Amino acid sequence: MKKVLILGSTGSIGVNSLNVIREHPDKFQVVGITTNSNIELLEQQINEFNPKIVAVKDVSQAKALKKRLNSSIEILSGEDGIINAALNSDYDILIGAMVGFSGLLPTIEAIKKGKRIALANKETLVVAGEIVTGLVAEFSAEIIPVDSEHSAIYQCLVGENLEEVEKIILTASGGPFLNKDKSFFENATVEEALNHPNWKMGNKITIDSATMMNKGLEVIEAHWLFGLPAEKIEVVVHPQSIIHSMVQFQDGSIKAQLGLPDMKLPIQYALSFPERLNNNFTRTNLPSIKTFTFFEPDFDKFECLSLAYQALRSGGNAPCILNAANEIAVEKFLLGKIKFSEISKIIYEALSKIEHQKSPSLDDIIECDKITRDFVTNSF
Amino acid sequence: MKKVLILGSTGSIGVNSLNVIREHPDKFQVVGITTNSNIELLEQQINEFNPKIVAVKDVSQAKALKKRLNSSIEILSGEDGIINAALNSDYDILIGAMVGFSGLLPTIEAIKKGKRIALANKETLVVAGEIVTGLVAEFSAEIIPVDSEHSAIYQCLVGENLEEVEKIILTASGGPFLNKDKSFFENATVEEALNHPNWKMGNKITIDSATMMNKGLEVIEAHWLFGLPAEKIEVVVHPQSIIHSMVQFQDGSIKAQLGLPDMKLPIQYALSFPERLNNNFTRTNLPSIKTFTFFEPDFDKFECLSLAYQALRSGGNAPCILNAANEIAVEKFLLGKIKFSEISKIIYEALSKIEHQKSPSLDDIIECDKITRDFVTNSF
Repeated sequence: MKKVLILGSTGSIGVNSLNVIREHPDKFQVVGITTNSNIELLEQQINEFNPKIVAVKDVSQAKALKKRLNSSIEILSGEDGIINAALNSDYDILIGAMVGFSGLLPTIEAIKKGKRIALANKETLVVAGEIVTGLVAEFSAEIIPVDSEHSAIYQCLVGENLEEVEKIILTASGGPFLNKDKSFFENATVEEALNHPNWKMGNKITIDSATMMNKGLEVIEAHWLFGLPAEKIEVVVHPQSIIHSMVQFQDGSIKAQLGLPDMKLPIQYALSFPERLNNNFTRTNLPSIKTFTFFEPDFDKFECLSLAYQALRSGGNAPCILNAANEIAVEKFLLGKIKFSEISKIIYEALSKIEHQKSPSLDDIIECDKITRDFVTNSF
Repeated sequence: MKKVLILGSTGSIGVNSLNVIREHPDKFQVVGITTNSNIELLEQQINEFNPKIVAVKDVSQAKALKKRLNSSIEILSGEDGIINAALNSDYDILIGAMVGFSGLLPTIEAIKKGKRIALANKETLVVAGEIVTGLVAEFSAEIIPVDSEHSAIYQCLVGENLEEVEKIILTASGGPFLNKDKSFFENATVEEALNHPNWKMGNKITIDSATMMNKGLEVIEAHWLFGLPAEKIEVVVHPQSIIHSMVQFQDGSIKAQLGLPDMKLPIQYALSFPERLNNNFTRTNLPSIKTFTFFEPDFDKFECLSLAYQALRSGGNAPCILNAANEIAVEKFLLGKIKFSEISKIIYEALSKIEHQKSPSLDDIIECDKITRDFVTNSF
């Protein structure tokens, strides 16, 4: 029986994690859950899974929850509350399902405890990949990716020799704007950008999918997870999202992992690895899907993808700037404050204006994240 | 440096095996080659690779070769000559690239010597799977499949637990008659049947591909290689022949192996496993291939595929009857003696008329093969 702490249990990955755990009550026990502010859903989850520890980032919502619950359960609050949950509770696996930069510090606490991290929060590796992978090695922790693409690559590499990898091929759905002209980006609405053809996900990641920044962040994440340089990480557009990614070896052989667009599978794999647990998830029926297609990505149209490759090649704090600028730009777009086409321009500006650091410390990264957020908030 | 004996070096797989070995002169050395009767090509191969032992099944051709060569090289002849090459020469890996039933006995000799068998001769497992797999276990030999489909499955299973396999999915090109009506089979010509859309192979296997008996034999081969019952072995038509086969695990995840239709890759893998050797084989470019399609196979139209499943389910000597009847029927078709549509009818007749044995010995199998060949030769 593995004890599981879920950071971000009310988001899309968190809810799916609980869906997986519900199917395997003999294998996994929820010992802690956290949310930013969605205490209605959190309360339902508390009632169903009976965790020992709960944390709510929003302090006033944490107080409101305490009143409603009227139980002996420990309720932490604030950003520190989330970090404390990772630092002080008793668990075997941490599911890092928070969105954005805020996942970094609690994940680091879990790594320092030598735990398994089922990592959905790609920003942790994007902004501080060098530090995080260093700590993983130092504390014998283990990161199993939950992103469907990285889970696919992880599965394809089982039993293989990483030194024999020629390249990895990340597949991309291409998002809702795959077949639109670049000129369309000028007036693309929030509603249009949120209308993803294959995946139901949170708002932030769905916009990232429309700009293809999501794939860019995944390229950087893959670099840290698998220790490969940018030129060995390729993106191929595969609109059906059935092949979740591929690995090409030095003999020319390609291995791929396939499945329906359903996060339950990679979540379960990250929890149960190296075992594969039986389940009743819907199976992939290839004759009913009928057709897979593949295209080169349009780097000219999807500037965010180009910017991510540039940031990876620049290294140091560049991916941190890229990520922070993107987070604020997407927030602004979702609030109707900027155009869709401005997202990439803002990120480009941030990368140009904010000072490049070659080997930032964790404190430098935290500082760089703040500076970038302030810059974007105030300049656009 | 691994010493390699190639049975059937002048056929399609044999020639490709030498193409692979030519690229890795530091890894593999050809110690022996054999042919049925193609001594022109064999002589060229002898001159290039300088093997220690040579065998020619056709006795008069063997004599002709001896005169031409005028060297100290040992030339064996007849069926016994081929078996002796496997029994008495010094090698690490035997490539079983002979066509049809004749591959069985020499392969068994290599197994009894505890060698690695790079097995392209699927009939060995089809006709005597139970005996062969028993001997492999007894003598700690090793079979690495060379068929692209089984190589794909073997690669997908590396690092995985066979007990967690839900099913394997063999892909089939569908052959040249995929889009023809069943009525077309009445008057299909040899030329049309030999016109395979993706693979350049020998005549026998190309006709097997047109009837889909090739896929049927592969289903039976997969049963013995991976220890799975018929209901866990599925066939999906994938006309592009890029996905070479797939494995679905009990968590619903599917792993696939992809590559161009080029036998050099699975041959090299079988030689170098568990290593993957660098090479300059043409790489797969998915955006230039653009589209994959998938269909259910038409069991009503491709009766040979249905017959193969039936033979696997019947067990015992049924696959041996299926295979022998098919070999003679295909020979007759290639000689213009029967119609394409009669191939499946002849096999059906043989399976109905020839006595079923539950647990045939090796001698029973050899006898059953002869009886079936005589039956088909004399009855149609």
